[in-house]
Amino acid sequence: MIIPVILCGGSGTRLWPLSRRDFAKQHVPILGGGSPFQRTLTRVSGQAPFARPLVVTGAGGRFMAAEQAAAAGVAVDLLIEPEPRDTLPAIAAAVEWSMRRDPDAVLLVLPSDHLIADTAGFVATAERAATTAAAGDLVAFGLAPTTPATGYGYIRPGALLPSGGRRIAAFVEKPDAARAAALIAEGCLWNGGMFCFSARAAHAEIAALAPEAAAAAAAALDGATDDLGALRLGPAFAAAPKISFDYGVMEKTASAAVIEADFGWSDIGDWRELWAQSPKDESGVALEGDAVALDCRDSYLRSDGRLVCAIGVEGLAVVDTPDAVLVAPLDRAQEIKGLVTALTAGGRREATEPARVHRPWGWYQTMDLGDRFRVKRIQVAPGKKLSLQKHHHRAEHWVVVRGTAEVTRDDEVILLRENESVFLPLGCVHRLANPGKIPVEIIEVQTGAYLEEDDILRFEDDFGRG
Amino acid sequence: MIIPVILCGGSGTRLWPLSRRDFAKQHVPILGGGSPFQRTLTRVSGQAPFARPLVVTGAGGRFMAAEQAAAAGVAVDLLIEPEPRDTLPAIAAAVEWSMRRDPDAVLLVLPSDHLIADTAGFVATAERAATTAAAGDLVAFGLAPTTPATGYGYIRPGALLPSGGRRIAAFVEKPDAARAAALIAEGCLWNGGMFCFSARAAHAEIAALAPEAAAAAAAALDGATDDLGALRLGPAFAAAPKISFDYGVMEKTASAAVIEADFGWSDIGDWRELWAQSPKDESGVALEGDAVALDCRDSYLRSDGRLVCAIGVEGLAVVDTPDAVLVAPLDRAQEIKGLVTALTAGGRREATEPARVHRPWGWYQTMDLGDRFRVKRIQVAPGKKLSLQKHHHRAEHWVVVRGTAEVTRDDEVILLRENESVFLPLGCVHRLANPGKIPVEIIEVQTGAYLEEDDILRFEDDFGRG
Repeated sequence: MIIPVILCGGSGTRLWPLSRRDFAKQHVPILGGGSPFQRTLTRVSGQAPFARPLVVTGAGGRFMAAEQAAAAGVAVDLLIEPEPRDTLPAIAAAVEWSMRRDPDAVLLVLPSDHLIADTAGFVATAERAATTAAAGDLVAFGLAPTTPATGYGYIRPGALLPSGGRRIAAFVEKPDAARAAALIAEGCLWNGGMFCFSARAAHAEIAALAPEAAAAAAAALDGATDDLGALRLGPAFAAAPKISFDYGVMEKTASAAVIEADFGWSDIGDWRELWAQSPKDESGVALEGDAVALDCRDSYLRSDGRLVCAIGVEGLAVVDTPDAVLVAPLDRAQEIKGLVTALTAGGRREATEPARVHRPWGWYQTMDLGDRFRVKRIQVAPGKKLSLQKHHHRAEHWVVVRGTAEVTRDDEVILLRENESVFLPLGCVHRLANPGKIPVEIIEVQTGAYLEEDDILRFEDDFGRG
Repeated sequence: MIIPVILCGGSGTRLWPLSRRDFAKQHVPILGGGSPFQRTLTRVSGQAPFARPLVVTGAGGRFMAAEQAAAAGVAVDLLIEPEPRDTLPAIAAAVEWSMRRDPDAVLLVLPSDHLIADTAGFVATAERAATTAAAGDLVAFGLAPTTPATGYGYIRPGALLPSGGRRIAAFVEKPDAARAAALIAEGCLWNGGMFCFSARAAHAEIAALAPEAAAAAAAALDGATDDLGALRLGPAFAAAPKISFDYGVMEKTASAAVIEADFGWSDIGDWRELWAQSPKDESGVALEGDAVALDCRDSYLRSDGRLVCAIGVEGLAVVDTPDAVLVAPLDRAQEIKGLVTALTAGGRREATEPARVHRPWGWYQTMDLGDRFRVKRIQVAPGKKLSLQKHHHRAEHWVVVRGTAEVTRDDEVILLRENESVFLPLGCVHRLANPGKIPVEIIEVQTGAYLEEDDILRFEDDFGRG
């Protein structure tokens, strides 16, 4: 059995405005289906060699990870990093966690922000990697290069091993284009950050080559606590060095092996790459959502709801979201990072927060904003409740449009069915809960002179928020 | 005194998605200010030679015309055409209306969907035209051509008149580009559809050259009725031939004169023209609303609320509205007509109706739409009320977020202040009114299985709707 270890930390803005600081690329639904994280999960679920996945995630992304795993119907173990420390500490913690359960377990470390076209090929590669890993080696997946990419590290394969795969002769840092072409001609492979090893072998190598990380991982597991069904690593985790697994272990160990992998891997690193991975018509136009192209070529048009129309454009990305629209040539997609940095510096909320804000209990989205009012749509998951709270500057009207809500208002507890409403005067202590089996959705109309999120005084919270 | 006759019929889709079948170009706010209709009104208001304007509008646009005139602070007389019949019948009705008040009145006929940069130059030209008109001639404005445009008719000036201006030697139909250049070299002028004449002279010429139109106009005035403060022409208006004033009168009369006009006229016929008229930065980029351009050139970016970002585009129009986004090269702006035709054929509401739907009492806009609910923002003008109505398939919650509303619910009449709400169960007979002095704004949450506009049974209506 192979335990998939899904790395789900990190955030990214290269698919802005779809991905944002607070809504990472791996969680963005793409290609008309699930998110890359969900696709990573389902790829290793419900079939032979794979055991229940272990998801390693940051504190910020934990509820999103749990929600998307549940939506994909995949049961997972969840390990929460108290703070982000790069891949070595994350993997060290996963290895320590596995060692304490089964030292002979084989772990398959997978980033969650990539696409893989050929699932069967992926599974077959994972099985070959597991065989090599069982012999005690630390195996990297060497991805068959498709272009002389300058954005990845390369692996130079060495001697053939009896267990399959090859010893790694060298890791090569991100090259320039000419060097990349030369590396490919020599038979070098891309390093996609996917690894396979036994818990025992990885544990020994981490202890030998990165003892601080090993100690921090062990202490973090010792101090780990249950956190709403997930395992939150102890504060000792913060002592681990911020370093990648490649640099801290793979490049130093004598047991580094590589398995050649060719299963249609893509890191969807920007809009150009997402366009390349999308189904396209004969003019090279990819449409997602309610988009219409008239005489366009080689373009990516995406709508999150509105009607998006393009006439006669070529090589363009047009991305519509509820609060921001991006228009940029596909071959200048790398400049989005600079745009987002500038927007962030300008204090633009759209740069960092998604229009739909996910919370441990569900999500909310502002649908209308006027002079002294704000309208939100709020969804609360079954069994969840918001904090007991009050506001100093606003009153709220709640109309239930789906499901059944339990509303606490000062000393009353009111059960509200679909099509019923309640008024929460300024200063009242209130709470919204979903006692039912389906999500509850309400329309909230706030009125007052100050309508920002920070006008909240919390008395009790299921999620430990102050 | 000159009576401005503002022609405000017609609709246009060439500025889609900003203008729509139900929201004509002349009513679209542009260039960071009022609409072309409002600019036309203020250009002839509050200064010396101009009397109170007469606005001729269709039944569909009458409330919008009245609302925008009021918002611009211009008192007008309003003549409603029961159905659209091109410019000759509209002008004939205005002439008949004036004849009955003051046969010596000088009328200045102005389309309302154009821009004029130089107001002082426009006023001076109008005064020259009025002098020629007072001598009994029918005067067309001959606009100084700026490009060999193929979209306008041309006027060839002839002999100089003692009253100023020149006799018209010939009207030339829309030419091709080569012919247009030749016409300009010969001294021909654009025909912009602006005319000046005395009521008496025009009345006589229309009677002589277009007797059916003259008779229909007279009968329509005889049968005209007061309609909420406007004058609605009688049904006889429909007997007028559908024909332009140029073709039916100006090209035939012996009294046709032309005044050369040069005051920065533009018909803002498409996005390219609006871009040309807009203030631009040194890269030729025009921004309206919340738009950000990074390394763009010669482009027009417009936001109606969302953040619109463009990177590295050239010669592009990006137009964002609440329900539709357009991306098209400025030099292919003329293809928008075809796009809108196709969308209309596909039954797309966005092709014809604006997101904000104007009604005689104010406006509404859908802000959120879910599985069994819809959220609208509704504004009711002071003193106005909606029809007394009921719905078979939906209940409604109203929350007042601004002003004071008077709500009729079956046998009750309830006064709702800001921050108060009311529930209207399915099937109840209800009405929303604004008894106050400022607009009332409410958030309406509809719930039910069918939430379209046609689920309405009206019992009483201030605006004669069934």
